[in-house]
Amino acid sequence: MSQQAANGVPCRGKVLTLDNMNPNVRRVEYAVRGAIVQRAGQIEKELKEGVKKPFTEVIKANIGDAHAMGQKPISFLRQVLALCSYPELLEDNKFPEDAKQRARRILEACGGHSIGAYSASQGIECVRQDVARYIEKRDGGIPSNPDNIYLSTGASDAIVTMLKLLVCGEGRGRTGVMISIPQYPLYSAALADLGAVQISYYLDEDKCWSLDVAELKRAIDAARQHCNPRVLCIINPGNPTGQVQSRQCIEDVIQFAKEEHLFLMADEVYQDNVYAEGCKFHSFKKVLFEMGPAYSSTVEMASFHSTSKCYMGECGFRGGYMEVINMDPEVKAQLTKLVSVRLCPPVPGQALLDLVVNPPQPDEPSYNTFMKERTAVLAALAEKARLTEQIFNEVPGITCNPVQGAMYTFPRIALPQKAIDKAKEEGQVPDMFYCMRLLEEEGICLVPGSGFGQREGTFHFRMTILPPTEKLKIVLQKISDFHGRFTQEFS
Amino acid sequence: MSQQAANGVPCRGKVLTLDNMNPNVRRVEYAVRGAIVQRAGQIEKELKEGVKKPFTEVIKANIGDAHAMGQKPISFLRQVLALCSYPELLEDNKFPEDAKQRARRILEACGGHSIGAYSASQGIECVRQDVARYIEKRDGGIPSNPDNIYLSTGASDAIVTMLKLLVCGEGRGRTGVMISIPQYPLYSAALADLGAVQISYYLDEDKCWSLDVAELKRAIDAARQHCNPRVLCIINPGNPTGQVQSRQCIEDVIQFAKEEHLFLMADEVYQDNVYAEGCKFHSFKKVLFEMGPAYSSTVEMASFHSTSKCYMGECGFRGGYMEVINMDPEVKAQLTKLVSVRLCPPVPGQALLDLVVNPPQPDEPSYNTFMKERTAVLAALAEKARLTEQIFNEVPGITCNPVQGAMYTFPRIALPQKAIDKAKEEGQVPDMFYCMRLLEEEGICLVPGSGFGQREGTFHFRMTILPPTEKLKIVLQKISDFHGRFTQEFS
Repeated sequence: MSQQAANGVPCRGKVLTLDNMNPNVRRVEYAVRGAIVQRAGQIEKELKEGVKKPFTEVIKANIGDAHAMGQKPISFLRQVLALCSYPELLEDNKFPEDAKQRARRILEACGGHSIGAYSASQGIECVRQDVARYIEKRDGGIPSNPDNIYLSTGASDAIVTMLKLLVCGEGRGRTGVMISIPQYPLYSAALADLGAVQISYYLDEDKCWSLDVAELKRAIDAARQHCNPRVLCIINPGNPTGQVQSRQCIEDVIQFAKEEHLFLMADEVYQDNVYAEGCKFHSFKKVLFEMGPAYSSTVEMASFHSTSKCYMGECGFRGGYMEVINMDPEVKAQLTKLVSVRLCPPVPGQALLDLVVNPPQPDEPSYNTFMKERTAVLAALAEKARLTEQIFNEVPGITCNPVQGAMYTFPRIALPQKAIDKAKEEGQVPDMFYCMRLLEEEGICLVPGSGFGQREGTFHFRMTILPPTEKLKIVLQKISDFHGRFTQEFS
Repeated sequence: MSQQAANGVPCRGKVLTLDNMNPNVRRVEYAVRGAIVQRAGQIEKELKEGVKKPFTEVIKANIGDAHAMGQKPISFLRQVLALCSYPELLEDNKFPEDAKQRARRILEACGGHSIGAYSASQGIECVRQDVARYIEKRDGGIPSNPDNIYLSTGASDAIVTMLKLLVCGEGRGRTGVMISIPQYPLYSAALADLGAVQISYYLDEDKCWSLDVAELKRAIDAARQHCNPRVLCIINPGNPTGQVQSRQCIEDVIQFAKEEHLFLMADEVYQDNVYAEGCKFHSFKKVLFEMGPAYSSTVEMASFHSTSKCYMGECGFRGGYMEVINMDPEVKAQLTKLVSVRLCPPVPGQALLDLVVNPPQPDEPSYNTFMKERTAVLAALAEKARLTEQIFNEVPGITCNPVQGAMYTFPRIALPQKAIDKAKEEGQVPDMFYCMRLLEEEGICLVPGSGFGQREGTFHFRMTILPPTEKLKIVLQKISDFHGRFTQEFS
């Protein structure tokens, strides 16, 4: 826009402003790293500068970042990564033989035997083979084809790529994508960015965040009025809600997808994080194949996995993969072309993924240490899941479903009407007002439920259960105390 | 689409087909990893399976992938990466003290002191500080603010993100982006994906691929008829063309950008790859600031750098950064939000970048080895640049500009009319036909000029100069021989 400057010479504003930037990007929201996390960062700086606060550290329970919460890396994974980084160490007898053997095999598969070379855009072939074997083993022998495996820069990258392929049309013909509410906000952010239509289906909080096909049906029928529903996204185990879906539910969802002619996207990054007794992870792919050829040869699907979660929690390496099933070969060629533009996923992340899908075996020297470390992490998580549910449910005004899996709790909080009014007065959504107060008073950073979506009139927050047990107990106690104070203040 | 199956039951086709997928993705082309590279991969497999060929290995000169071509990693970089991956090695006295000190500093800046934690979405703060100091030193003291530095997953990621921010409008109001022809096809691919309008300006092959502002003016005036030109992209040193822009040219471009109210994107990933005598890298930022406050306080710009090129060639780590200048603070907040959706760039790549911008100093134990390794790589590249130009220009029908910088040559090839006709008969563009023949006969994989764009009726190929000198000589000889044979065959 042209403006007239004081001296009469026309002066132009910025080329790029809020008003003329990509409007889809403006619509993107991502609460997990939103305003509250920025404020947490400021408070950390203030603490460093000596500003007095009612606490001495900020505890960032807003994100599933295991190592940041003090979880130690799994030795075997890091030994192999060090060997791959600096192969001179292969001569060092400090490293176990199986770690060396893995490193040699990975380096052998790299251009110039270096993890500094680009890989194939779809990922290193031998890693994709190992992933396929891992999936076959997980699913009791149902075949997996390495050509259907695409390695990625964390699961987020693959999810966005898949959504991008699927989006087309204009107006009422625009692609609609079904996502759960509450959801992980990568989905809503990607849909905003792509200009796709979000179709919300609600999980049933009263039934432990379970998914009801009748609700899917309600949502899709309503959506058909204004868009073209083509995709159904499921997160299992659930983020932020921590439920683990039953086999029956998965079967119902697959049948629904078939009937409604939907592409299924199964976000299964928490597949190894299942804690509750009686709960078990069932992969969408396994259930699909068990339903027989009418399903296994027709329903199109992509399933996502990551190195960031499970027992290893290696978020920083940005490793992940997706498996596509029943994808049209011509579309697959387009997908391969699309990922080639970004050249390749980070090779250290690919190497890490290879170790995750091909860990030490019982006859190998690293097996015992590896299993001890892995089991300790998963046992601690199970204990923390139990503890979180128990302590929160003792607090009047907090209701918390069991954390059956994943690494979050999403408790419901009763907010007094006066607090709701006060928040509105300050132009904040009520649960953001609550979480900001908690952050300022106790130094605990959570994400308001509004960042994930929730039924109108209900309020929640997401908290990771990752802090070490003793610290988690303190966090839970502080939140409980705060909730009492807050309720009293506004009653 | 519904179809009637043989048994009378309606059967539906795929949910996702070539016809109903994202049409922008269909339009994407990326020659550097296109059909010819896929064929090269097949031939490699055939060789492994024992199929007889007139050669014993495929030489992939299609991509700037130094390690794949046998270049050894720089020891210091990999020592620090190994230390960061497996910090137990910090106790090992095999590693030099400065490597340990760098590793400790990086780990200190990571969540939970682990490169397995997520970093801030913009990148680790101390790495951004080091980048800013590096830029200041490079530009003779012109200040750089770490808040303006965004770390990225290779330069490609940052370039696509920046373009995405800039694209808006519909029809004649759609954002137009000026890119050079020949160009690096990431740009055309990203513009297709974003549905932006590509505005081509031609480099002058007769003047060593130089850029003429009159040509920029011609291109933008023509484009204003059908779109809204808002962005000017420059690659310096040039890819695929290897030219290094003069200071005067950069000044002219900046003035043009100011006059035409364009956002400047300066792709400077080859800034350390300058070989020709009399040539020097001038950063757009330095020139901008030397032009005085009328420019340095108004012209909006982003400059991109990468860990994949230069002397280290660490493509697999996907490290990079961009510096934004004069960006509207509200837009910057949107940029920060946008990058947060993907959580963070790979942390090993961030660590690597930190070492690149903060290498061993003269008083540190690793300095001599580091300098020896670095100098050897750059000296060999300079020698190979010279050799390539010399040998190609001896071949009748090949004309080759000096490789002043970067790591490619883009020679012009004269193709006989009969070859052009034959190619058309086979439905191929003529330089693809030429390169495919070369691949089948000599096992050398190049990228046809048509993948980068070229003036109508001219033909080129891009070849990296990265193979080791002795191998490069063989490659050059084989191409020369092939060119002679090919010309004779079709004369």
